[in-house]
Amino acid sequence: MKAVVLLSGGIDSSTTAAIAKSEGYEIYALSLNYRQRHSVELESAKKVAAQIGVMQHLIVDFDLRAIGKSALTSDIDVPRLQSQRDVIPVTYVPARNTIFLSFALSWAETLDAGDIFIGANAVDYSGYPDCRPEYLSAFEDMANLATKASVEGVLRFKIRAPLLYLKKSEIISVGMALGVDYSLTWSCYDPLKTGNLFTPCGECDSCAYRRKGFAEAGYMDPLKALLVAR
Amino acid sequence: MKAVVLLSGGIDSSTTAAIAKSEGYEIYALSLNYRQRHSVELESAKKVAAQIGVMQHLIVDFDLRAIGKSALTSDIDVPRLQSQRDVIPVTYVPARNTIFLSFALSWAETLDAGDIFIGANAVDYSGYPDCRPEYLSAFEDMANLATKASVEGVLRFKIRAPLLYLKKSEIISVGMALGVDYSLTWSCYDPLKTGNLFTPCGECDSCAYRRKGFAEAGYMDPLKALLVAR
Repeated sequence: MKAVVLLSGGIDSSTTAAIAKSEGYEIYALSLNYRQRHSVELESAKKVAAQIGVMQHLIVDFDLRAIGKSALTSDIDVPRLQSQRDVIPVTYVPARNTIFLSFALSWAETLDAGDIFIGANAVDYSGYPDCRPEYLSAFEDMANLATKASVEGVLRFKIRAPLLYLKKSEIISVGMALGVDYSLTWSCYDPLKTGNLFTPCGECDSCAYRRKGFAEAGYMDPLKALLVAR
Repeated sequence: MKAVVLLSGGIDSSTTAAIAKSEGYEIYALSLNYRQRHSVELESAKKVAAQIGVMQHLIVDFDLRAIGKSALTSDIDVPRLQSQRDVIPVTYVPARNTIFLSFALSWAETLDAGDIFIGANAVDYSGYPDCRPEYLSAFEDMANLATKASVEGVLRFKIRAPLLYLKKSEIISVGMALGVDYSLTWSCYDPLKTGNLFTPCGECDSCAYRRKGFAEAGYMDPLKALLVAR
């Protein structure tokens, strides 16, 4: 039984991959290099994919800088310690999950895999519209009208988001139980780079959720910095 | 009033761009270089964009060969004079229009453009599932749940497919009336290359629909070959 898993290299997608693996799926991990500011996360994705044991890890490249105006792809500052929680933040990348899931759908159809896993979370998250259950459900409906395999009745695509209703601390607890090595994961949107050493800023949204998650789960965060040889 | 128009450089997308232009839209043309066998169509897209007069023509690059198994991207022969009309042909590219529309959606949101035009056609077409009205409608629903602009009530995205119910000959007649220069367009899936000269095979599905369309519309096809300087 095959599944395509979107793997960014962060806590959520790494835990999602481990859940899919624990359910017995053969994992086809898909990462996207969209020229994100924190493309160092792809190094984490590679390590996580190797640790979990995937059938294949594919990285698709495209340049979203020309398209999607976002603090993650453009020359807009990543906000520090964002306080306004009712506003979709500038780190939102226009239609990012739709692009990601579209590539996942294409690969899934080619692989004969009906299940697509995504680490979307609607609790401890940044308020991105494309992490909400109603969005994921609409994508699934669309996917089953879009593809030859579904129209011919060979596959029925399911968008699986097992973390959707979990708090970050619960995600971490699940992952620890499944043996996820969080020292391999990367969360920071705006890493500081010194030589080949990347250090999390500790102050962006993503760092804040990570810190809160580990604290509430009662674990030490094993990640200190990420050494990348390029 | 801005619109993103998916422009492959073929008859349908070129006519669609002309229709959008005639409705008064500022056109942002989007082409996708997915390493298709007939990537020469991108040269046509550039010429058509220039002739119609667009605000910007963006070409996004990614490699679908690693993902989507199709005669258009893989080492599978493009069929000649396909006779079985009730089967989705091997030129189907898994989830291609979903990937294309996702990039269009991302760009549209960035541009503050609510309208996305696609040259999908459900009459004289190859039977691709992602050209059908129910698919386009599902994509539109998903798009309006996916994006910050729609969730915040700033934009409502519409997927416009003005050719959906037209025969190929009717598409050509509309385009001729709007001044589309079809000598600039490209249709063939499997061109013959001699030096820098590309010649349509004349026998693939796409060539067959083009020939039938011009014949029924009562026009000579102005395209003989395409010279490309690379």
